[in-house]
Amino acid sequence: MPDLKLKEKPADSESLADRMTALGRAARAAATQLASTSAEQRNKALRGAANEIRQHSGEILKANQADMAAAQERGLGSALLDRLMLDDDRIAGMADGLETIAELPDPLGQVLAAWDRPNGLQIQRITVPLGVIGIIYESRPNVTSDAAGLCLKSGNAVILRGGSESFASSSAIWRCLQAGIESAGLPPDAVQMIATTDRDAVGYLLSSMSNYIDVVVPRGGKGLIKRVQEDARVPVIGHLEGLCHVYLHESAATGMACDIVLNAKMRRTGICGAAETVLVDRAAAARLVPALVARLLAAGCEVRGDAGVAELADGVLPASEEDWDTEYLDAIIAVRVVNDCGGAIAHIQQHGSGHTESIVAEDEQAVRRFFAEVDSAILLHNASTQFADGGEFGMGAEIGIATGRIHARGPVGAAQLTSYKYLVRGTGQLRP
Amino acid sequence: MPDLKLKEKPADSESLADRMTALGRAARAAATQLASTSAEQRNKALRGAANEIRQHSGEILKANQADMAAAQERGLGSALLDRLMLDDDRIAGMADGLETIAELPDPLGQVLAAWDRPNGLQIQRITVPLGVIGIIYESRPNVTSDAAGLCLKSGNAVILRGGSESFASSSAIWRCLQAGIESAGLPPDAVQMIATTDRDAVGYLLSSMSNYIDVVVPRGGKGLIKRVQEDARVPVIGHLEGLCHVYLHESAATGMACDIVLNAKMRRTGICGAAETVLVDRAAAARLVPALVARLLAAGCEVRGDAGVAELADGVLPASEEDWDTEYLDAIIAVRVVNDCGGAIAHIQQHGSGHTESIVAEDEQAVRRFFAEVDSAILLHNASTQFADGGEFGMGAEIGIATGRIHARGPVGAAQLTSYKYLVRGTGQLRP
Repeated sequence: MPDLKLKEKPADSESLADRMTALGRAARAAATQLASTSAEQRNKALRGAANEIRQHSGEILKANQADMAAAQERGLGSALLDRLMLDDDRIAGMADGLETIAELPDPLGQVLAAWDRPNGLQIQRITVPLGVIGIIYESRPNVTSDAAGLCLKSGNAVILRGGSESFASSSAIWRCLQAGIESAGLPPDAVQMIATTDRDAVGYLLSSMSNYIDVVVPRGGKGLIKRVQEDARVPVIGHLEGLCHVYLHESAATGMACDIVLNAKMRRTGICGAAETVLVDRAAAARLVPALVARLLAAGCEVRGDAGVAELADGVLPASEEDWDTEYLDAIIAVRVVNDCGGAIAHIQQHGSGHTESIVAEDEQAVRRFFAEVDSAILLHNASTQFADGGEFGMGAEIGIATGRIHARGPVGAAQLTSYKYLVRGTGQLRP
Repeated sequence: MPDLKLKEKPADSESLADRMTALGRAARAAATQLASTSAEQRNKALRGAANEIRQHSGEILKANQADMAAAQERGLGSALLDRLMLDDDRIAGMADGLETIAELPDPLGQVLAAWDRPNGLQIQRITVPLGVIGIIYESRPNVTSDAAGLCLKSGNAVILRGGSESFASSSAIWRCLQAGIESAGLPPDAVQMIATTDRDAVGYLLSSMSNYIDVVVPRGGKGLIKRVQEDARVPVIGHLEGLCHVYLHESAATGMACDIVLNAKMRRTGICGAAETVLVDRAAAARLVPALVARLLAAGCEVRGDAGVAELADGVLPASEEDWDTEYLDAIIAVRVVNDCGGAIAHIQQHGSGHTESIVAEDEQAVRRFFAEVDSAILLHNASTQFADGGEFGMGAEIGIATGRIHARGPVGAAQLTSYKYLVRGTGQLRP
């Protein structure tokens, strides 16, 4: 691993603007180079980075132990410590992840559409990189390799800014990425990292770098996403929250309905694709609610229900209006009885976050209506909301699930980190 | 035409925020309704609006005469007066334009991709409307019908804000659009217009309506676009400028090279796809430059050249560094001799705006390199840059040419005003 030092203590004479502009220029130059590289070269860089991570896992662990010690000293909570912590498995996971990304089909140079015009012009729309991507993330050090890997795969240069608590870990990983990139003969500035001593760097990046950054992807909690969306003068691909619903239509089979809700809620409660609210058709409530509540309680899940639910099952706490708008990210679920499919759709329109919803039903007409009228990034029929994931979609990896409607929606993988251009071939055509 | 009055003098007690929020809510409700409409209904609304415009052309003309008189009184320039002016032909053009949009294929419900997963999940990605689009434009009243027509076609609600100088004309057109929409049984709030007496409305729309507006499309000069990009807290699809190049490779045929440059510059000098700079390979300069300059001068075009050009032809004014960065939008062209294809690409990278560039060449390898390395929305080979147009691309109509890289790039037609969602069909799958 070459000795690529991060400027942790920049010279005072160099202003933040100067440092950020230098970073931006270097990223833009690297992006221009990357745009003309072959898939083979980019995949070689990804595999090289995976090797570097495996070879330097000891250094990465050591850096992580320093981060962990500092975090414990500062009294950070156990959830954050868990996100921050690296071990051999997690480091191997990062290396494997980069190799998986290398195996994906090349997202660049794909012909999205091709047609001929009556005047003989031949038009093609082909994929190209977005350019320079800014990734702002929090305490998970593995985002460093996951996000940079997807950017590299799609020919984009990336500027990383991780959380201060994971800075030593992220820097160690980043050095491995740069070494891998260099081993493939690509420009190391394809992946740059902002020192966390530059406290105002995020603000500067969001507000003053539209010449150098094509899009910012925030990865983290609500606070981060909100800040980015408020301050950004550059385009943002972000997700706000995942307030996911499971709707049990009256035609739902009892066993499947319970299995799906249990999986959607309890498989992992802390991810954005976890279900937060179950809506049950009134016509089937007497059949579905008792079975469902018993299963949830037995699994250790707190159940908050409206009056219609409470009268059908024991152990249900009363739900308030606020519950319909709460992303618990915990072993708590809100259950409500609705009149019919229209009632479920209206509830989701009012309270949903546009992330992922599932309908459990045997009635095909209800499914069609739900699919047509619910406006969320991902709609599922007879499947768990926890499938809302780029890997589960077969996209290999993802940088997040976008809930916005511009550019990318749903899982954001390498293919979503592309733009396109038109290539038009003529034989001397002039416009009349 | 129903008597749909625009609140030109809102009650003082109603704040701008209240009025804008009401507008936003109404647009969101209309968007929800529009998303479930059939193509037939939306096309019926477009044809209905075209009929209303034809039937009420007298009223539109009268409104336009009032706008024109006020503009002349205020001493506005002839270019602006020409953009503002409507006559029978232009009004017929608006109606025809709406009918052309009605004939286009439905951009909604298109299956962009479909695949199955090993666990049996069937995944589809299908197109859906963006939601609510804000259009901010200047003096051309026909943007009212063109832009609203494309939004309606793609199932989007739209909030229009035209320039104050064209307000009477735009309002008359807008009333026809609403009448057409109502005649098809669709919600008239699908197309709303902001009164120009709400002076701070644009600022409010850009900064405070992210809950109600999914994307803003500015249509107008540099000043407008810049203001929108600086102030927007909502996503923007915009184009900055069209500094288009024609590169004459040494393999270019003399006649075709001259024809293409003449058409690219002089067919219409004021459009964004007009060429502003010609780059000529040094190896062919002695053959190409004299013929080209003679043709340009004969056509009444001012030619500004570097030393290499000036020594090969008479009548060439000296070009300064500034010329390479100037979008003349006039009968002026800058001509420069470059060493080779790499020199042309480097010039375009430094000075281009990412809009449209053309290479004239018989050498296929040069074309491939130019297509691969130049990063603009539209690249042409042996064809005029003035083909940079949604209609010429066969997209029926466009709301502009996007030079950004997010969401849409190049001509923005009805299909580009869509997002997508994932529909996933299962048989009870749980995530392991």
